[in-house]
Amino acid sequence: MDIIARLVAAVGPANLLRGEEAVAPWARDWTGRYVGAPLAVVRPGSTAEVSQVMAAAHAAGVAVVPASGRTGLTGATHAPDRIVLSLDRMNRIRAVKAGPRLLIAEAGVILDRLHEAAEAHDLIFPLTFGAKGSAMIGGALSTNAGGSNVLRYGSAREQCLGIEVVLADGRVLDLMSELHKDNSGYALRHLFIGAEGTLGVITAAVLKLLPRPRAYATAMVAVPSITAGLDLLARLREATGGAVEAFEYMPRSYIEAHLAHIPGAREPFDAPHDHTIMVEVGAVAPRDAEPGPDGTIPVVEQVEEVLADLMDRGQVLDAVVARSEAQRREMWARRESAAEITFTQPFFVDTDIAVPLDRLEEFLATIRHRLAGIDPEAKDFVVSHLGDGNIHYTAYPTRGNSDHLAAIRALVDDTAVSLGGSFSAEHGIGQSKLSAMRTHKDPVAVEVMRSLKAALDPKGLLNPGKTVPGP
Amino acid sequence: MDIIARLVAAVGPANLLRGEEAVAPWARDWTGRYVGAPLAVVRPGSTAEVSQVMAAAHAAGVAVVPASGRTGLTGATHAPDRIVLSLDRMNRIRAVKAGPRLLIAEAGVILDRLHEAAEAHDLIFPLTFGAKGSAMIGGALSTNAGGSNVLRYGSAREQCLGIEVVLADGRVLDLMSELHKDNSGYALRHLFIGAEGTLGVITAAVLKLLPRPRAYATAMVAVPSITAGLDLLARLREATGGAVEAFEYMPRSYIEAHLAHIPGAREPFDAPHDHTIMVEVGAVAPRDAEPGPDGTIPVVEQVEEVLADLMDRGQVLDAVVARSEAQRREMWARRESAAEITFTQPFFVDTDIAVPLDRLEEFLATIRHRLAGIDPEAKDFVVSHLGDGNIHYTAYPTRGNSDHLAAIRALVDDTAVSLGGSFSAEHGIGQSKLSAMRTHKDPVAVEVMRSLKAALDPKGLLNPGKTVPGP
Repeated sequence: MDIIARLVAAVGPANLLRGEEAVAPWARDWTGRYVGAPLAVVRPGSTAEVSQVMAAAHAAGVAVVPASGRTGLTGATHAPDRIVLSLDRMNRIRAVKAGPRLLIAEAGVILDRLHEAAEAHDLIFPLTFGAKGSAMIGGALSTNAGGSNVLRYGSAREQCLGIEVVLADGRVLDLMSELHKDNSGYALRHLFIGAEGTLGVITAAVLKLLPRPRAYATAMVAVPSITAGLDLLARLREATGGAVEAFEYMPRSYIEAHLAHIPGAREPFDAPHDHTIMVEVGAVAPRDAEPGPDGTIPVVEQVEEVLADLMDRGQVLDAVVARSEAQRREMWARRESAAEITFTQPFFVDTDIAVPLDRLEEFLATIRHRLAGIDPEAKDFVVSHLGDGNIHYTAYPTRGNSDHLAAIRALVDDTAVSLGGSFSAEHGIGQSKLSAMRTHKDPVAVEVMRSLKAALDPKGLLNPGKTVPGP
Repeated sequence: MDIIARLVAAVGPANLLRGEEAVAPWARDWTGRYVGAPLAVVRPGSTAEVSQVMAAAHAAGVAVVPASGRTGLTGATHAPDRIVLSLDRMNRIRAVKAGPRLLIAEAGVILDRLHEAAEAHDLIFPLTFGAKGSAMIGGALSTNAGGSNVLRYGSAREQCLGIEVVLADGRVLDLMSELHKDNSGYALRHLFIGAEGTLGVITAAVLKLLPRPRAYATAMVAVPSITAGLDLLARLREATGGAVEAFEYMPRSYIEAHLAHIPGAREPFDAPHDHTIMVEVGAVAPRDAEPGPDGTIPVVEQVEEVLADLMDRGQVLDAVVARSEAQRREMWARRESAAEITFTQPFFVDTDIAVPLDRLEEFLATIRHRLAGIDPEAKDFVVSHLGDGNIHYTAYPTRGNSDHLAAIRALVDDTAVSLGGSFSAEHGIGQSKLSAMRTHKDPVAVEVMRSLKAALDPKGLLNPGKTVPGP
């Protein structure tokens, strides 16, 4: 029996897609950068079926590329002429437990649905980013995705208590702990989270839910410099007891690109400013969230007091605090259109670097200088989870040949790493950052990763050619 | 050249200890349970020396047991006739960076010194537990130690940004990232944290520092039941916006044992109560911490309001709020003497289980019933990080033969696991919980652990016979 027949036996003929038309949705990613039709797409509907699929692939020595929402930015699910294992049919929320505040979901549940399911119990599942309407939790965990509130809630890893994994040979690994403390052996959960499907296929997860903030203070703030922005962050954190959820930096070029490319986009302030920050503080405790006799909300007052004080000192140039949910949504929409704007130019090098907070200004100054050195007319596009030191720096070169693009990518990575930073803060490695892994990651770390890959996937069948550079 | 000569070459003769007297400190642990003199103790003073020690051991095929403060409770550093690699000389704090709030320490730094170093910069390193005066950070990370404020700050794992590890063959793995976001490949840090020195030797770490709470509300509270205690926790968390740091349960038997065994111990209340909780809330924000015009501290008022309301409803029976640092210290000392009290009886079975919060009462009722079934005169001793669902349940059987002790341990583990819990919440596996690993851990998880061990330590020389049960 050939592999296709075995896969059909595992999932039924309706769930094994072949032929140009059937596999078309998997033949290119949404950015248009990763193009190439898979040989077939297999869509198991249960953990048992995933196990059968992997056992069949293992027996046949056939490689498999796990995929879910396919909103990643590094080509981690790129699968030309490969078999895609799509988790999209595994889209059940198995349970929401409001008492112990957790949610059990299969890998194919879209983030937005998790948000809704939590909110129905007056709780939140905090993990969120622009692609929340199509990203699925399996992929978010496999990428260890970040987003706009890592500052307060951590990355995907921190929001997960347990996972279920199908190994390369089809064995099912049950790590579905609902406990907040469990020290029973190696931290296997953490090994599979962020491994981009190269060590196993995450099929389900136990996710933490958290109290829903009762009120938000959301504001657009213009500051004279990034350093002033970081001072603002420190002041807000102190004033609110660490309740800053988002601290998103957008320079003038971002605002202009947003105005140019997004219908209905508006200026955040009456006058243009070089440095704009969107800040959001979430108040959980009643004393911060409940309106006073005059209708003012304490958390909003806290933020306004800090802003007023810094404005007196010239450290804040302008500020607009959202007065309605509509205004808040407009602020978020401005930030969340970043990915869409990034890909509007014919040539681009998008990156996801992190540097220590006190090197952010130096990073931007240095990379601009260095970029001008090899492409004087190049433009750039910057948006940053500033509080995490994470900058999405996109270069728009004047020409698109691959050597030039690779040279620019290397320039950005080099610059970040030379400042004590990382070439991948939250998007992962996939295939676009393999060369950076080879150049910049501690070589012993890469050797250890290869040893782990060989131990758990000795035939090299799980998402080959991703995450870990070859020798 | 034999292994001893090679080790002497690596660390110098003064740092290679042999002979009964020299190795005596390593010949028994502080509980007196793990007794047996090591063949030698090698005390490298630098990462390079640890690397040479491991390379020598690897070349000679000689096993090594890494050890630091040796305050663990599972026999993870038990090393009869083995070579101990002691990290105690690697006791430098390499840097404290107050701006980015981090501290870089070698493995042999004692927790108390970390606390002091952070406090000198008006910050805190939160990880703390009873043994903080002798436990070292290398061991705390290797155990993924918990303690009394996991509720707010997480376990050791969550407080660490980066580590340096010497592998079984002496290679040095540099994962000393100072970044809060770094998604560059597999989460190797998490694999070595909690691995009890079986995959590599942690030689240094980058640790997170946090804002120092400006005020504490610390109280002893008597409640009618554990369920009432959990309601109190929920109310306090809501009222304080999640600022509860410690929520430690001590039943009457704990209070009595404390009075009996600790000089100067006092009753927490005028009348005895069955269920006592020590709670601490830490206030970081000025609005919670700064005294009002009448001298009252907002966070103390918040706690008192909740306590008064629950007292009206009969859900709190009595409460004492600390009015001075001395009173606060007395409350903490009562809780932190738990380990000392545990080991005062001739026979004991100490455990470290976790169950979901809504099964805590059921766990205690069930285990007492089951214990009485096999040893009707047995007593027990309970202390619990209640908010984590983590109970240190110690049985005091009437006889100490090893079969009987093992049967009781199995009873406790079975009971926890049957309620969706874990047989090891924060103490790790070492050697005392290997049999529980064999019985209760997902068998595929144990297979995966064996594969990882074989991949990273193919000769099986790092702390053999610990953490992962053999086939």
